[in-house]
Amino acid sequence: MAPVTIEKYVNQNEPHLVSNQLATIPFGEYIFRRLLSIGTKSVFGVPGDFNLSLLEYLYSPNVESAGLRWVGTCNELNAAYAADGYSRYSNKIGCLITTYGVGELSALNGIAGSFAENVKVLHIVGVAKSIDSRSNNFKERNLHHLVPQVHNSNFKGPNHKVYHDMVKDRVACSVAYLEDIETACVQVDNVIRDIFKYSKPGYIFVPADFADMSVAADNLVKVPHISQQDCITYPPEVQLLDIIDKITSWMYSSKTPAILGDVLTDRYGVSNILNELIYTTKIWNFSTVMGKSVIDESNPTYMGQYNGKEGLKQVYKHFESCDLVLHFGVDINEINNGHYTFTYKPNAKIIQFHPEYIRFVDTKYGDEQMFEGVNFVPVLKELYKLIDVARLSLQYDSNVTSYTNETMQIEDLTDDQSSIITQAHLQKVMPGFLNPGDVVVCETGSFQFSVRDFAFPTQLKYISQGFFLSIGMALPAALGVGIAMQDYSNAHINGSNVKEDYKPRLILFEGDGAAQMTIQELSTILKCNVPLEIIIWNNNGYTIERAIMGPTRSYNDIMSWKWTKLFEAFGDFDGKHTSSTLIEFPSKLALKLKELKNSARRNQIELLEVKLGVLDFPEQLKCMVEAAALKRNKK
Amino acid sequence: MAPVTIEKYVNQNEPHLVSNQLATIPFGEYIFRRLLSIGTKSVFGVPGDFNLSLLEYLYSPNVESAGLRWVGTCNELNAAYAADGYSRYSNKIGCLITTYGVGELSALNGIAGSFAENVKVLHIVGVAKSIDSRSNNFKERNLHHLVPQVHNSNFKGPNHKVYHDMVKDRVACSVAYLEDIETACVQVDNVIRDIFKYSKPGYIFVPADFADMSVAADNLVKVPHISQQDCITYPPEVQLLDIIDKITSWMYSSKTPAILGDVLTDRYGVSNILNELIYTTKIWNFSTVMGKSVIDESNPTYMGQYNGKEGLKQVYKHFESCDLVLHFGVDINEINNGHYTFTYKPNAKIIQFHPEYIRFVDTKYGDEQMFEGVNFVPVLKELYKLIDVARLSLQYDSNVTSYTNETMQIEDLTDDQSSIITQAHLQKVMPGFLNPGDVVVCETGSFQFSVRDFAFPTQLKYISQGFFLSIGMALPAALGVGIAMQDYSNAHINGSNVKEDYKPRLILFEGDGAAQMTIQELSTILKCNVPLEIIIWNNNGYTIERAIMGPTRSYNDIMSWKWTKLFEAFGDFDGKHTSSTLIEFPSKLALKLKELKNSARRNQIELLEVKLGVLDFPEQLKCMVEAAALKRNKK
Repeated sequence: MAPVTIEKYVNQNEPHLVSNQLATIPFGEYIFRRLLSIGTKSVFGVPGDFNLSLLEYLYSPNVESAGLRWVGTCNELNAAYAADGYSRYSNKIGCLITTYGVGELSALNGIAGSFAENVKVLHIVGVAKSIDSRSNNFKERNLHHLVPQVHNSNFKGPNHKVYHDMVKDRVACSVAYLEDIETACVQVDNVIRDIFKYSKPGYIFVPADFADMSVAADNLVKVPHISQQDCITYPPEVQLLDIIDKITSWMYSSKTPAILGDVLTDRYGVSNILNELIYTTKIWNFSTVMGKSVIDESNPTYMGQYNGKEGLKQVYKHFESCDLVLHFGVDINEINNGHYTFTYKPNAKIIQFHPEYIRFVDTKYGDEQMFEGVNFVPVLKELYKLIDVARLSLQYDSNVTSYTNETMQIEDLTDDQSSIITQAHLQKVMPGFLNPGDVVVCETGSFQFSVRDFAFPTQLKYISQGFFLSIGMALPAALGVGIAMQDYSNAHINGSNVKEDYKPRLILFEGDGAAQMTIQELSTILKCNVPLEIIIWNNNGYTIERAIMGPTRSYNDIMSWKWTKLFEAFGDFDGKHTSSTLIEFPSKLALKLKELKNSARRNQIELLEVKLGVLDFPEQLKCMVEAAALKRNKK
Repeated sequence: MAPVTIEKYVNQNEPHLVSNQLATIPFGEYIFRRLLSIGTKSVFGVPGDFNLSLLEYLYSPNVESAGLRWVGTCNELNAAYAADGYSRYSNKIGCLITTYGVGELSALNGIAGSFAENVKVLHIVGVAKSIDSRSNNFKERNLHHLVPQVHNSNFKGPNHKVYHDMVKDRVACSVAYLEDIETACVQVDNVIRDIFKYSKPGYIFVPADFADMSVAADNLVKVPHISQQDCITYPPEVQLLDIIDKITSWMYSSKTPAILGDVLTDRYGVSNILNELIYTTKIWNFSTVMGKSVIDESNPTYMGQYNGKEGLKQVYKHFESCDLVLHFGVDINEINNGHYTFTYKPNAKIIQFHPEYIRFVDTKYGDEQMFEGVNFVPVLKELYKLIDVARLSLQYDSNVTSYTNETMQIEDLTDDQSSIITQAHLQKVMPGFLNPGDVVVCETGSFQFSVRDFAFPTQLKYISQGFFLSIGMALPAALGVGIAMQDYSNAHINGSNVKEDYKPRLILFEGDGAAQMTIQELSTILKCNVPLEIIIWNNNGYTIERAIMGPTRSYNDIMSWKWTKLFEAFGDFDGKHTSSTLIEFPSKLALKLKELKNSARRNQIELLEVKLGVLDFPEQLKCMVEAAALKRNKK
């Protein structure tokens, strides 16, 4: 039998897999083809002398023709935020490329945020040539962008892996500092598999001389695509069925089960299946803070966002009446768990579905059964397939209706007749601004706490850094989301509840203090023709901090900007691509929101600067601050 | 004898030392008083919930009345850059305050740059309450801003010291994560002493609950001031004299000695003494890339900037004719050493003066003598005191004249008659723009390479990140420099060569690509009334990268901005505080430069946008790129 040659594998319809009949390709090309093969169609970053040789392969015919796009950002932190946004929208791996030290360190906070919130980001760092760290002639040399040793740096060479050592096992699930070109392709693939598997960031440090070196194209040909589903380990069928049995038996014996849709459901791409399960079973369902929009909040048994004692009373009353809680994609931290105030009905049963375990807790007997190493994805899929809805015996209080924006009960909302725009007013009018299928990015800040209790229209995708809470993240993240929406048009829409000809809007709720952190990326949003509606809540400073301490302190003040003038400076010289409006009164806000909501023309950027009171913040933030403070003092 | 009470030490003229007759003060107050006591009068940063309790003490009467100023920046990276600039100008410790994770990580690249370039920066990070990391009830909780564990984070508490572990022994000379209030003051003082001693950044991680805790004020009273000189260890007199003997004997027997003024001379505050030594001895002297402006370049025996084979030929010819090189404040890295091409006259002797050693090298015999642990500061001081100028026997080539802008020989400069503005043109006209006593901040980028060969007027202070080369650093650094100039008016001016009534200008040379990285800090410059002349070289992208690779590649492109519109958006709504001018032709540039140079009115911000060719870069950058590439390929 003739040996199988690499050409045999080549698929002419996938140019990024074609290797021009060559069995070897430059490593730089390998990296970019691999990115294409995992669905990453755009790459963010900033050029620097250590990554230029790699960036050159963006223009290699097999890469360029396959549609890999370079999105240069104004700085590296913004590239990290954008890559994060790209992944949050597309559920692909967001990728950024930076340079040694000066670039990668600037991006670090963005990576840490992705890590904390389980976002799939690949950070490729161009480092010094391999000879610089290995050859005796060079390794004693202090290179630019590379910090010298703490002591004796004039006599002792630098640690080339110093930045690698910082991130490894701290803010990345997988890190490879490439040192051997022979194994480089495998290392790249391994980092990618880990990112998918753990849904956390990974790093690849690429020496500047590696990009031009030849590598075998085998891996690309043998594994032409890698998806997240490929990277999940499936349990043996016997075990899987055993788990399903246990889940269904608990469900069938429950009278008031609840489904809690948490963030990892989104990160593992199974929100749709969870929603199908909800539609089919009509089980009461709740979202979490970080899992907001995992569940279609327009479903008839949606009961609101549960956040322990920090959430709305009407919501926790309902949640705590449930005798079984199916918690999908569970992620436990103080924000997502109302400062650890989750409370269950006495004797309730709880099932936690996580990428690394399935856990059964029977509070009546204090029993606990843990299936370690089992990813919840196949479990959820199988559960949906095998559940017999007829055997459910739901007996919810029939007086309880589903949670909607109309039934939202927040004290402050009752008598707001103010002639200025207040957070209470926003909480009333903003939910109606959103259309089914829209994509909303929300900045960390006071308004974010309001959004928690919105009941979103169907198919709305909500993106917010709910736990790591790095202000300034949302604006560049919106760039990444917009790019992903260009690469994966309507990827978030499933089902027929959104009109076919509706072009989903990308809406960014932004704070003024936060916006100042990363404002330059408006310019890249403009450059990339990302149609965006950006609403800047201008409350003259860090109101979220004022809520906590120093309400009138100067450290919470920021410089007043003329927000409506920014686009003119940032590249829209004649105002053809943007429209900026200052809004000070509820009436004007209403008019503008209506106009945007119903506009047929969605090809330009709309910026609204909305003036708010300096000390006005939503009721939910007050509750959180109080709860957090209370919990601490108690010990 | 009555016991000495704390009140006895109190000096009524120094409110920051007065403790209102109390022997204890809140720890937050201690920190700020300690900062005042070391000469840090302004603090940069961004508020965050973990540092608010500390920031509250900015307003404590004893702190506020003593003049400690909070300079809120738009983001944390910019705060780090500003603190760096503050220290580079004042030679005090620049301080920034950030919050756990989201804040401190954003600042990290700035800190790494300070570390690489020996700048004294204190980074205070507000972290979670001490109870959160210690109490069994809390330490298992995932807190916002704090990355969870890589695995099992739902069951395993976070590592509260994860960020501490990243920076320790990597980008800081001293790091204290405070855990015990009893020792906290001593730890603060120790970090400060280390920063002064090693001239590198230090970190203090302050739990949010520590700010309000009472501490003894003793340390402040017993040690009311700490200066860098206090933190340097002095060698025993016998050893010191031994070293001086050896230096002077080498000097007396040399015919063509050279003084090389390097960067650490500046960082240890002894540039003046070195200049006095030069004035007195008339020894030929050279600057280094990083040591630029350490030496008064108007002195009659200044011979230019020496950078091995990457510098001007006329300069290295002179340097390499010297039989003795006294290298003060030596810092060895590829940039400062022309990619390791420093070359000495055959049989030359070399003396290296460093904060941690004095090293004698006799190349004739291959002899080397090293005095480890001896700081060069007392050695230089003593040398200046003890040298007998009469015993020098200088025999330089009498045909050689000192290095001036007129004698600069660069090929490109000879026939520039272009009607557009070129780098060659700038190299001719920009030196004349500078006045004695001005302060110049220069961004990393192509123009920076030009400046290397300027002969500066006397008393000019030059600030540039010459080795770490993080683009975007200079603009926020200029904020820090401007604040330091407000706190320490004319601190850089010594001697009578600058007119008494001359108000030194602060000039920033900035690139367009770099400026986009950190542009928002223009707004803080405006807020703080820092009069600044900012010249933006607009060459449509990353020209320094184009010089290396991808001259026409899209990855080197940036968005076109209308630079002259920025201040209107950033807070100067009616144009009263700023003036922005677009300059496209040499004639207009000449006019504007003349106007600025001679202006009597220096209370506003002047922004010049100067259009340059996309592919035009100075001869020096070409040489560097070629030299760097050559050296690598050779092995």
